[in-house]
Amino acid sequence: MFGEFVYLDNAAATRLDERVLGAMTPYFLETYAVATSQFGYSPGIEAKDALEEARSTIARALSAKPEEFIFTSGSTESSNMALKGVAMALGARSGDRRPSGKGKHIIISKIEDFPVLYSARALEKQGFRVTYLDVDEYGRVNLDQLRQAITPETILVSIQTANQEIGTLQDVAAIGAICREQGVLFHTDATHSFPRVLLDVREVPVDLVTVTAHLIHGPKGIGGLYVRKGTPLVKWMDGGFQEFNLRAGEENIPGAIGFATAVKLVTPEETARLQDMRDRLIERLLQIPHSRLNGHPTLRLPHNANVSFRFVEGESILLHLDMRGFAVSTGSACFSRSLEASHVILGIGGNHERAHGSVRFTFGRFNKPEDVDAVADAISEVIAALREISPLGKE
Amino acid sequence: MFGEFVYLDNAAATRLDERVLGAMTPYFLETYAVATSQFGYSPGIEAKDALEEARSTIARALSAKPEEFIFTSGSTESSNMALKGVAMALGARSGDRRPSGKGKHIIISKIEDFPVLYSARALEKQGFRVTYLDVDEYGRVNLDQLRQAITPETILVSIQTANQEIGTLQDVAAIGAICREQGVLFHTDATHSFPRVLLDVREVPVDLVTVTAHLIHGPKGIGGLYVRKGTPLVKWMDGGFQEFNLRAGEENIPGAIGFATAVKLVTPEETARLQDMRDRLIERLLQIPHSRLNGHPTLRLPHNANVSFRFVEGESILLHLDMRGFAVSTGSACFSRSLEASHVILGIGGNHERAHGSVRFTFGRFNKPEDVDAVADAISEVIAALREISPLGKE
Repeated sequence: MFGEFVYLDNAAATRLDERVLGAMTPYFLETYAVATSQFGYSPGIEAKDALEEARSTIARALSAKPEEFIFTSGSTESSNMALKGVAMALGARSGDRRPSGKGKHIIISKIEDFPVLYSARALEKQGFRVTYLDVDEYGRVNLDQLRQAITPETILVSIQTANQEIGTLQDVAAIGAICREQGVLFHTDATHSFPRVLLDVREVPVDLVTVTAHLIHGPKGIGGLYVRKGTPLVKWMDGGFQEFNLRAGEENIPGAIGFATAVKLVTPEETARLQDMRDRLIERLLQIPHSRLNGHPTLRLPHNANVSFRFVEGESILLHLDMRGFAVSTGSACFSRSLEASHVILGIGGNHERAHGSVRFTFGRFNKPEDVDAVADAISEVIAALREISPLGKE
Repeated sequence: MFGEFVYLDNAAATRLDERVLGAMTPYFLETYAVATSQFGYSPGIEAKDALEEARSTIARALSAKPEEFIFTSGSTESSNMALKGVAMALGARSGDRRPSGKGKHIIISKIEDFPVLYSARALEKQGFRVTYLDVDEYGRVNLDQLRQAITPETILVSIQTANQEIGTLQDVAAIGAICREQGVLFHTDATHSFPRVLLDVREVPVDLVTVTAHLIHGPKGIGGLYVRKGTPLVKWMDGGFQEFNLRAGEENIPGAIGFATAVKLVTPEETARLQDMRDRLIERLLQIPHSRLNGHPTLRLPHNANVSFRFVEGESILLHLDMRGFAVSTGSACFSRSLEASHVILGIGGNHERAHGSVRFTFGRFNKPEDVDAVADAISEVIAALREISPLGKE
């Protein structure tokens, strides 16, 4: 049954590419030993070499040095490690002012994804002060507001590269420049953009970057954190001495190989193909009455379309599309595990109705051009039918 | 080349069982969607059902309720989450005494594995007091000493079920009973014993149990934490609302399926087979002059043999065995990523020489009975040859 589905929720999870599985399999069944130093046994040295090659591949996609890339269990861990690790390294204890003048203030945007948002909230409970920057109607941070928010107490700015729901891209180069100028560390959550949207750490003054494998047809349970050399960071996952003693835990070598393979398989040509599908879908969806694009019209993820439809609820659309064999996502409360309306749609000035009526379509490698018209036709019919019976209003 | 190896380091990593890979594959390629609530789309509901079935399977192996078992990225994370989560929940802030009278004191044993040991040390830096209990010559905690160490400030005791190096089993039932009697939470790291050594949470008064998949021919990058209902635990990995809102991060469903499959494949018959190999190997190794068993003669992991050989260094043995096609481990400093001699061998009263000369052999599913004599013959020859040239002394 699932095979017949048109899957358009590639920002939530993606199908593993068979080539990724093929690359991982020898590390499941043959080179399964723990990575060892050059003083270890040969299977362990072989495992170590493979791990380091995977690390180099991913680092290269960021134009980073291999020793600046740390494997983690995924982007949630990466963002926890970044925010809490910097907070532990630079957050002065109460009454204890460091010579650097650094303190307990962190700045994030209002529309960050949960790992950054809730790590910041956890730090608030520990006595940190967090500024939640407003965003404009497209979801973009205002650079002047950012500049004004930075105080001598500020230790970290965390602003995403691309939004998880509406796909809006931030100007990370400009944000990084402001942070660098003010002597503040800058973390960006690039979970949804890496490596489709170029982020070159030689050009962009960013200190920490969260990335993951599972949204680019790589395996679940593996991600990474770019850590610019010299960034003050207290180890968050304590235990063994893996990952340059920055992250404990037995290395997930098949996962690392899978991640690296997935990164290599993402090409500009493929991304352009996804973008064509996205553009065509947005065009078709905006022909439906009372529809509205969420997020920026051009500065957005190449594979993300997010549209709100008035007088209907997202979860009804989702269920009707599901019956017709399409998988999409919605910012509606009932679909969310938090049981709250999307903080992103509310953050860009939308109301609860707009959040409830929002539908996110995200393309991936296995989508075909004909999926676009198929889902556009289906959603047009579904919305027309739902509006017929809707108590919320008629078109 | 690796295929010809006799791999005897199954306490570091194990070969994935093909049946585990077979069980995971549909979740890589077909049911890859994110787990959703009953309001989600059908692929997500299918994924959720699979995840919950995997959870039930593993919980059953502990005689726990499914909702008491949380998936994590591995045992390192599980132990961090247990120690730090309890510390955040119960550790009174300085000057702030909780009505419960609880405070900032934790008790662990001296020979805990790194995740527990270094999580405790990290808490020390945050103002917690940690008691490191001595162990006897076999690595066993003294129950009277434990009882005496508990104060009204104590919030948590963390003592492993089995030791990572010498395989010694602790009396977790008695330890749990003491903790329960004193109103103190009890965490045990069962990384090396689960599920070969029975731990029934209905019988053993334990509140938190760390387990992992990768040492039982399951995948790397997935583990779990048993959390008894009602245990005070602050969420450590912040972000989404997964795992009963106790651990954020996209669910690693193929990993969970792999873990559950690996648990099902462990049988008492197989464990008895490993134990036979272990016993025969210990018997042979103790015939080598100046050899000594590390750990308890009977109360030890069924698949672990650990022997120290005087006048030789573990890394020399390891390298020579490697050249002959055997993979083993050693407590010697150079082999360790910490570049320190085994704290376990030192903890049981051994000196640096005994740690340097220690060799750990751990059996797994893919070992054959003939591996025992093969490695025993090889190590006898290697040790004789090394002692010939050893500056440390002659036999």
